[in-house]
Amino acid sequence: MMGTAMTVPLRDNGHEVRLVGTPLDEGIIAEVKRTGIHPTLRRSVPDGVQPYPVEQLQQALANTDLLIAGVSSFGVEWFSDTVLPLLAETPLPVLAVTKGLAGQKDGTVLPFPHLWHRRQPAGGESSFQAIGGPCTSYELADRRHSAVVFCGDDQERLDFLKSLLETSYYHISISTDVIGVESAVALKNAYAVGITMTVGLLQREEGIGCREAYNPQAAIFGQCMREISELVTLFGGLEPSIAYGVSDLYVTVYGGRTRKLGILLGRGLSYADAKSELDGVTLESVAICTAAASALRRLAEAGEACLDRFPLLLHIDEVINRGQPVNIPWKRLVRRDLQQAERHRGCSPRPRT
Amino acid sequence: MMGTAMTVPLRDNGHEVRLVGTPLDEGIIAEVKRTGIHPTLRRSVPDGVQPYPVEQLQQALANTDLLIAGVSSFGVEWFSDTVLPLLAETPLPVLAVTKGLAGQKDGTVLPFPHLWHRRQPAGGESSFQAIGGPCTSYELADRRHSAVVFCGDDQERLDFLKSLLETSYYHISISTDVIGVESAVALKNAYAVGITMTVGLLQREEGIGCREAYNPQAAIFGQCMREISELVTLFGGLEPSIAYGVSDLYVTVYGGRTRKLGILLGRGLSYADAKSELDGVTLESVAICTAAASALRRLAEAGEACLDRFPLLLHIDEVINRGQPVNIPWKRLVRRDLQQAERHRGCSPRPRT
Repeated sequence: MMGTAMTVPLRDNGHEVRLVGTPLDEGIIAEVKRTGIHPTLRRSVPDGVQPYPVEQLQQALANTDLLIAGVSSFGVEWFSDTVLPLLAETPLPVLAVTKGLAGQKDGTVLPFPHLWHRRQPAGGESSFQAIGGPCTSYELADRRHSAVVFCGDDQERLDFLKSLLETSYYHISISTDVIGVESAVALKNAYAVGITMTVGLLQREEGIGCREAYNPQAAIFGQCMREISELVTLFGGLEPSIAYGVSDLYVTVYGGRTRKLGILLGRGLSYADAKSELDGVTLESVAICTAAASALRRLAEAGEACLDRFPLLLHIDEVINRGQPVNIPWKRLVRRDLQQAERHRGCSPRPRT
Repeated sequence: MMGTAMTVPLRDNGHEVRLVGTPLDEGIIAEVKRTGIHPTLRRSVPDGVQPYPVEQLQQALANTDLLIAGVSSFGVEWFSDTVLPLLAETPLPVLAVTKGLAGQKDGTVLPFPHLWHRRQPAGGESSFQAIGGPCTSYELADRRHSAVVFCGDDQERLDFLKSLLETSYYHISISTDVIGVESAVALKNAYAVGITMTVGLLQREEGIGCREAYNPQAAIFGQCMREISELVTLFGGLEPSIAYGVSDLYVTVYGGRTRKLGILLGRGLSYADAKSELDGVTLESVAICTAAASALRRLAEAGEACLDRFPLLLHIDEVINRGQPVNIPWKRLVRRDLQQAERHRGCSPRPRT
């Protein structure tokens, strides 16, 4: 869906665009060919976009300036195995819409651009960039004002990619802080579960049709911001990247499957039952929660992080991965922000740099 | 309304509570006496709360441990003139729900606790604290989980106030960063206008009943977070206080008069016309926008701030105070977050400390 939405600014800028489905998108590509409409995005694909089935990926890649990778984090391995080898001979800049982090055995997390850089065949010269920031595919396709950030290691290449895609409604910042941007925008998926749990908790008390309450959501939102800030720094990212994740959290909470998951858990369903209600699909939010909590625990074991500072992420992880019932640790979210030195008394993690 | 909502945790903790109206609240106090219901909060006042008209303020203050000041920022002068003299003989800890900043002639802004400390009669020994964080009066009165912060200069006194008010649903952090907390929570009122302007802009294009778009709101939300962070630091506050303001912004955007103002401005009304539609009332958001933009411009003149880093606040100020039409400066919100030293090239404000 996001890959197709990206064809809107591309076509508005007059580029030739080829839209290639993954093996999961056969029906969608067929529908686009037949009707010109993307069936789940529920929008017309812009005039001039050429749809290709996955079998014709190599032909679609011929004579291109840019490959936009529209896979979700669950398609990262497929992309590594199938697409990267094709790029060995004709290196391209790759721009990924994928949000997520790959957990590594040593307790670190790796952004997908860095993972793909490592995974490309020896001697491969493709470059890997990613898009962060709050942007839903529906609204991009509708040409709503959207602010995103392109992150990558090379500033000039980011400027080039921006020149291809910038429009009057698609506003592109650039950042060379790949770890910071990718951590922040991935983590928001995990934390959105925490905010929406409060919606389900209230429904459990007062019935599903009850009026929504915003004090509890905002309370958790503040905690999300604190924990995302600390995690981004802990993972090696920089402070200016945090706002891309926090603003993305703002939009994620309003709708979609992550919201549904949080509400179901808040109502009292186990994660297994909630997952069944969501057609058995594992969500990005679950994947990133698991990877981040696991990385955090390993860092804590190594004395490099303090678990006490992440009560919300650990609670979400316990609910999803350890069968615990939702029971927001309100009293552990309370803070003592004192100007004196004892602010971090008893817990001085060494930040990773 | 917030003063009355505060009686809920107070009574739940078994305190004796006297509810005193300001001169503007005569009708409300009469209604509470007659029916037990606060007519604008639309909630029953808890059993045992004693309502007092303003003429009986002195009697109401007799033998009390704490004065909670429920005035808005427009009542700060009245409080200074009327209440502070009464406290000269019987000093009390004061806890204010007021959100705002008093602009000073030298370009600095002063939190109300500090203003009142200066204003109390010579030798006065009352102490002044304030409440920040996301908490609407309706939801506090309904005992929804609410996370607030009590800020003041004395940590032990903050602990005492927290012991009086903390309940299973009212979660109290404490902070000695008065400037940071008060700046952050005041600024959110100004910035909420910026986010909701995007709602009105879309209505102008597509009609008032159109479906809301969240990409533009989230884009502006991210910019709000960046500017609030920088302003809090510029005004002398500390980083941990920022989240109290940003989470408060999250809840302010959902409803109330500030949202209405932003929407009306976005639809194309001048500030004068929008104010008329809002019954001619000057909102907190307008007062803080004016004070903060004025302080920022003076700091810039003194070489201590860089106006380029606050395009959104300055635009909101131009719309409200200089008759400019809403025209979100999208391209000035785009950033280049580079790890190299040129990140702040051409603009190196000296932060105030």
